[in-house]
Amino acid sequence: MEGPEEHGETSKAPLSRGASKGVSILDVILRFVAIIGTLASAIAMGTTNQTLPFFTQFIRFKAQYSDLPTLTFFVVANSIVCAYLVLSLPLSIVHVIRSRAKYSRLILIFFDAAMLALVTAGASAAAAIVYLAHKGNARANWLAICQQFDSFCERISGSLIGSFAAMVVLACQQFFLKIS
Amino acid sequence: MEGPEEHGETSKAPLSRGASKGVSILDVILRFVAIIGTLASAIAMGTTNQTLPFFTQFIRFKAQYSDLPTLTFFVVANSIVCAYLVLSLPLSIVHVIRSRAKYSRLILIFFDAAMLALVTAGASAAAAIVYLAHKGNARANWLAICQQFDSFCERISGSLIGSFAAMVVLACQQFFLKIS
Repeated sequence: MEGPEEHGETSKAPLSRGASKGVSILDVILRFVAIIGTLASAIAMGTTNQTLPFFTQFIRFKAQYSDLPTLTFFVVANSIVCAYLVLSLPLSIVHVIRSRAKYSRLILIFFDAAMLALVTAGASAAAAIVYLAHKGNARANWLAICQQFDSFCERISGSLIGSFAAMVVLACQQFFLKIS
Repeated sequence: MEGPEEHGETSKAPLSRGASKGVSILDVILRFVAIIGTLASAIAMGTTNQTLPFFTQFIRFKAQYSDLPTLTFFVVANSIVCAYLVLSLPLSIVHVIRSRAKYSRLILIFFDAAMLALVTAGASAAAAIVYLAHKGNARANWLAICQQFDSFCERISGSLIGSFAAMVVLACQQFFLKIS
């Protein structure tokens, strides 16, 4: 099918061969960044717990991520995306060498879009709950729990950063993959 | 390779010209479905309110979407996506006629991905809050408000459907746009 180099594969890519290779290398680098982001988020959220020195009838003395189902979803979503990104890395490296590979690139684009949606869903659902933990809601009579669980709240807020960074990276990657 | 029109545009599209036109028509139809979904979601959520025949010190006698900031974000996100889809419709129709248009398609793919992320963020954040309204959270001492505000809860749960449908449609569309 290929001649000296992939002869017979026409391309509508607006980029030259060299630029396309550059984009492929960028793709690998961005994948690494997204792996670090999602992994850090999943670990930071998953290992959070805080035990208070006191407890009352209403406030539990220990807080961890599994107390809130949304935060569990956040950990699961980040883990899945991280695992996918690790598995997709070899394919992405192949694209650096065979810069005109067409169908394998389509597969990557498709799953990348699904993973973008998954990490967005996890991050924004968790952000909604973290916001509630910080601010509470007077109308629904949900009290902010961050006065009690201050270090727990700091950790769960911080762990959102990696996930949102991965979201931005995956969105950019979508675009780079398309133009390459 | 090309006919008299679009001379000089090569294509790596795996589809024939006829199939590509079919996909473009499908794209227009899916855009209509997504418009209806997001519009219905925004309206259903935005017009929800329930006034209780009684009130106590803690539970407010009137519930509407703006009581919960996340639901406000849901309405805004759905409105933005709906407006974008309406504006993108003419461009999408142009693609049915000029089925090899390249750069305008890239623009659509790029903004579609951004809108997919936005509608996903809105829908999943709202879903997290709606879940909390239904189930509450004993650990955080957040009580379910759906016992009181039953019709309010039904409406906000129902309004998620349109948004999630639009999400699925936009994700499919991403793929169709890429292979066309």
